[in-house]
Amino acid sequence: MAQDPLIVFTPSGRRGRFAAGTPVLQAARSLGVDIDSVCGGRGLCGRCQVRPSIGEFSKHGIVSRTKNLSGTNETEARYDAKRGLRADQRLSCQTQILGDLVIDVPRESQVHKQVVRKRAEVRAIELDPAIRLHYIVVEQPDMHNPSGDLERVMKALREQWEMEGLECDLRVLQTLQKVLREGKWKITVAVHRGQVLTTAWPGFHNRAYGVAVDVGSTTIAAHLCKLATGEIVASAGLMNPQIRFGEDLMSRVSYVMMNPGGEVELTAVVREAIDTLFQEVAKEAGIGKNDILNVTFVGNPIMHHLLLGIDPTELGVAPFALAANSGMTFWASEIELSEVNSGARVYVLPCIAGHVGADTAGVILSESPHLSEEMVLVVDVGTNAEIVLGNKDRLLACSSPTGPAFEGAQISCGQRAAPGAIERVRIDPETLEPRFKVIGSDLWSNEDGFEEETKATGVTGVCGSGIIEVLAEMFLTGIIMADGTIDGAMASRTPRVQADGRTFSYLLHAGEPELRIQQNDVRAIQLAKGALYAGARLLMDRLEIETLDRIVLAGAFGSHIDTKYAMVLGMIPDCDLSKVSSAGNAAGTGAIIALLNQRARDEIAQVIRKVEKIETAVEPRFQEHFIAAMGLPNTTEAFPHLAKAVTLPTPKERSEGAPGTGRRRRRNRS
Amino acid sequence: MAQDPLIVFTPSGRRGRFAAGTPVLQAARSLGVDIDSVCGGRGLCGRCQVRPSIGEFSKHGIVSRTKNLSGTNETEARYDAKRGLRADQRLSCQTQILGDLVIDVPRESQVHKQVVRKRAEVRAIELDPAIRLHYIVVEQPDMHNPSGDLERVMKALREQWEMEGLECDLRVLQTLQKVLREGKWKITVAVHRGQVLTTAWPGFHNRAYGVAVDVGSTTIAAHLCKLATGEIVASAGLMNPQIRFGEDLMSRVSYVMMNPGGEVELTAVVREAIDTLFQEVAKEAGIGKNDILNVTFVGNPIMHHLLLGIDPTELGVAPFALAANSGMTFWASEIELSEVNSGARVYVLPCIAGHVGADTAGVILSESPHLSEEMVLVVDVGTNAEIVLGNKDRLLACSSPTGPAFEGAQISCGQRAAPGAIERVRIDPETLEPRFKVIGSDLWSNEDGFEEETKATGVTGVCGSGIIEVLAEMFLTGIIMADGTIDGAMASRTPRVQADGRTFSYLLHAGEPELRIQQNDVRAIQLAKGALYAGARLLMDRLEIETLDRIVLAGAFGSHIDTKYAMVLGMIPDCDLSKVSSAGNAAGTGAIIALLNQRARDEIAQVIRKVEKIETAVEPRFQEHFIAAMGLPNTTEAFPHLAKAVTLPTPKERSEGAPGTGRRRRRNRS
Repeated sequence: MAQDPLIVFTPSGRRGRFAAGTPVLQAARSLGVDIDSVCGGRGLCGRCQVRPSIGEFSKHGIVSRTKNLSGTNETEARYDAKRGLRADQRLSCQTQILGDLVIDVPRESQVHKQVVRKRAEVRAIELDPAIRLHYIVVEQPDMHNPSGDLERVMKALREQWEMEGLECDLRVLQTLQKVLREGKWKITVAVHRGQVLTTAWPGFHNRAYGVAVDVGSTTIAAHLCKLATGEIVASAGLMNPQIRFGEDLMSRVSYVMMNPGGEVELTAVVREAIDTLFQEVAKEAGIGKNDILNVTFVGNPIMHHLLLGIDPTELGVAPFALAANSGMTFWASEIELSEVNSGARVYVLPCIAGHVGADTAGVILSESPHLSEEMVLVVDVGTNAEIVLGNKDRLLACSSPTGPAFEGAQISCGQRAAPGAIERVRIDPETLEPRFKVIGSDLWSNEDGFEEETKATGVTGVCGSGIIEVLAEMFLTGIIMADGTIDGAMASRTPRVQADGRTFSYLLHAGEPELRIQQNDVRAIQLAKGALYAGARLLMDRLEIETLDRIVLAGAFGSHIDTKYAMVLGMIPDCDLSKVSSAGNAAGTGAIIALLNQRARDEIAQVIRKVEKIETAVEPRFQEHFIAAMGLPNTTEAFPHLAKAVTLPTPKERSEGAPGTGRRRRRNRS
Repeated sequence: MAQDPLIVFTPSGRRGRFAAGTPVLQAARSLGVDIDSVCGGRGLCGRCQVRPSIGEFSKHGIVSRTKNLSGTNETEARYDAKRGLRADQRLSCQTQILGDLVIDVPRESQVHKQVVRKRAEVRAIELDPAIRLHYIVVEQPDMHNPSGDLERVMKALREQWEMEGLECDLRVLQTLQKVLREGKWKITVAVHRGQVLTTAWPGFHNRAYGVAVDVGSTTIAAHLCKLATGEIVASAGLMNPQIRFGEDLMSRVSYVMMNPGGEVELTAVVREAIDTLFQEVAKEAGIGKNDILNVTFVGNPIMHHLLLGIDPTELGVAPFALAANSGMTFWASEIELSEVNSGARVYVLPCIAGHVGADTAGVILSESPHLSEEMVLVVDVGTNAEIVLGNKDRLLACSSPTGPAFEGAQISCGQRAAPGAIERVRIDPETLEPRFKVIGSDLWSNEDGFEEETKATGVTGVCGSGIIEVLAEMFLTGIIMADGTIDGAMASRTPRVQADGRTFSYLLHAGEPELRIQQNDVRAIQLAKGALYAGARLLMDRLEIETLDRIVLAGAFGSHIDTKYAMVLGMIPDCDLSKVSSAGNAAGTGAIIALLNQRARDEIAQVIRKVEKIETAVEPRFQEHFIAAMGLPNTTEAFPHLAKAVTLPTPKERSEGAPGTGRRRRRNRS
């Protein structure tokens, strides 16, 4: 007797023999080959397409002549006519094995396909959303053998999808009978984490979306993702309307403390804003709100609590106790979000500690320091800096009170990143003349056409990355000394350095407004970068390490600054510059990962439990590091990697007669 | 070395040796002795009281002199001063073992105590409510080791109560921080089914109540139970306000069919009525709505669906498909009930089939035919009759369309059971003169003082049980013949029998109004009882049995009729009269059982899966039985038990010349 045909699936390499006539999808399933399907093998969804890679295949004829595969049947032809089928691809549910075959399962047809990210250094996201759709054909009721419509739906899920022990939302049950009859006993259901039936549509339904939301203190950003492919189909952002209750987090907590019940207002406005974002992304993608089935959130602890309707007062006072530090799942309706499917589930990433929030949990998911062989420092710079340090063996986290100087606040000529803001600066080491770029133009200020290009916006101020660069350049050119003092002696070399009361300043731009770097601006950045550096050092102390393999700068700020200048200013510890990278909005990426991969939620829960949480406020060494980190890096020994990248200024004595700063220096020493 | 003291606990008989100084509660726990506690051994709740039964014990002195038990400590003295302690009882958590002891655990101190029911023939309810309270002492937050307040609550539950893997409602989390601080880190939590934290109170809280609700088409009844003891502390009932949309079930379904969206109104009014009942029972018991933590519901399929917000249209047309036939648990808020704790859970018993509802599931829980060795028939008589037949091996259920005649509707002189309604009737076999009792008086109508006692109410009509009795007596005295015809020949013996057009009638009461039993009244009851009997016979056929060991009549009607007369009329199959009993509102009792014992919910789920559901509408034999059952039982051979209890009338030919019924009889035969 001849043997059954042998089938080899690629890329998995799984193989087996199957009786002639076996559908390819069935063979794949029995071998555990990862092939997607929503319709359960009924030729409706097109998710199970495969590429038979032996012989010469074409859907119209040649295939059947090879005799190793069945020809196109009616169902497949209908699908092809309606939705189009590539010439080299077949619906595996409709195609039968007739002889030996090698069958390739393209990426798009895999359930757990990889969603590749733009940055090469980060791991791809394995698609495994918490919500999946299942098309089922349900038995009709039978008076001779009465059973509930729901129970027959469950039976169909068991028999057609091998899903057992499901529950069903009451909301679904309330309309289930109509849905079943409208769909003529064929319906599609959404199942959350293989456990609960959260929605039901009549007939075949193929649209499932989720939104990942990053609730920042300043802005709220939402990304609408197609759950079947991981594709981001729309994004939107808006200012956090809580700003009218207080610019920064602590002033919002103060508002709540001063106005009992104020947290209710703060909660209401942020939820309203999120609903608005949902409307925007749905409109942009041309979908209805009922197709949004899952939402994930990241945010700092105060945003997290306010979103959930928890009074954030405890986060404003020691010991900064979180209400909870676990990830949580509930209905969107429980937090009064209505611009989503009424059965939509929300997952909120876990907060880590009183000052280290779900945003940091998102950063960890995105950057995976817990899987790294290398010792990696991840810094998320915002109003506070969240710092994570470690590798696969051990992970530490803390928050450092940098204040908003990096965002341009507390800087005399500072402003938010917007057209007209200076973002790049170079200072000529000989003439001490600056040149710069402003947001909205690609030209340097000393290039032809700059005036023309910036006429509309003007030169309005200096944004965060511009501040970092101008200060670093001032240090590298000797205008600022290692202790942060603007060197009055330089006034003899350039009129841009001028006495300004008891201190000196540097004229960056003479226009209207005049942009001048003052001594207090340097001090503000010194305080901020000192705090950031001290936090990192504190964690390095805990791990008893002196060097880092890799540094990741996360957050909007981190993605705009030149990492070299950050290191020149001593914001971050010394490290090979080629190993310092920007991650962009890693917190938001973490929310997307948790949306697209349900196991990431379990993963982050485990990581959070293991993370060692350091509270800088109670660490005596933090103050020591902070004071020590106020100065700028100027020794080749302490900053070997930096010294390779730039020429550090020769240490020099502060010139005599420079007014004002002497006392301050003495005070620092006392 | 002397052996450790030996302790024997009664009634369990468990025994063990424990080091001197061991608290009695701890010893009990380590032996698996069932002792209750809410406060976790802190001397607050008083639930763990025991009765040391050796030596001469008294709480003030003698105990300590026996040296076998420690004396009263401060905590116990405080409890005694505040809440009182029986002289022979001790708090087991505060009392230490010093020598050999026999310790009795009184019923009140057992977690799984038996709640004994009034009726001897039914099993006691083992107390095991779905909601339990746990007092915990929670660690305070520590900046050096940050963790969420919720996670420390979970830790306390793990360490102090061995409860693992709990979840927490978002609603609880929203106020948890305030509750913890108000309670100075001592709180009491309510836990649902050992799985979810549903409420938290600051400090020690000892009040947990539940409500069992029977949603009938005519009346809604609610029983408030103390979950710790099983005691019913308040009951209330009111008319189902849906009556204004239709007197009976089918007219309400018609209302929905004719008025799209009408189900929303019907749902709203029934939920409103239930909230009113919650207010009433809470007020009666003097508790707040926040102490109501659990609610259970029974009701027929249409009431069940409307309560849950499910359109009942499908139940009005074949194949009478239920939306679901499983028990369901959700938040009270999901069905918009607000007069309970905001975290209260609702459990709705499962419906069985399109015409056999959660009320029948309640009847099964109450009467336990599925545990019976005997073959038992349970009949719940209302507008429809639900019939359950079987024993521990096999259980069958059906619904029979009796119509409302048993409730006094469709009867010319019928009325609801209310003061003034005739409920008992006797007819003298010689004189054919009736005597009767009316609701509100204990006197027979021929006794002295009857006129006086009934002056206020008058004699206004005949209620369901009165109809049964008067018809049965008319049959036993020969006024009605076996085929149901009022015998015109009797007019010669008594003026009470009169021609009434083409048929005859019997004058029951000559007052104002005149109460007269007409031929159509007999026919209406014949139809109803025929349907009931046919349903029972149908199930007996299926089981291939001819005799029953026991019959239970459930429902308000069943509890008022004299079972003998029910059998005389042939409502129920022949059975030893001493084995026919009334169960009262067994459906409501089932709701109470599900409230007090969580495992009853799992039990009924299993039973429901096994029950064989018979749809009378599609059973050809039902019609046969129905026609055969129209006559009245008059052969000693077919009704041996009945024949022992009463003297059945001698079969006689219908007297010639009796008008009107001849055609009908012929039609029945055709």
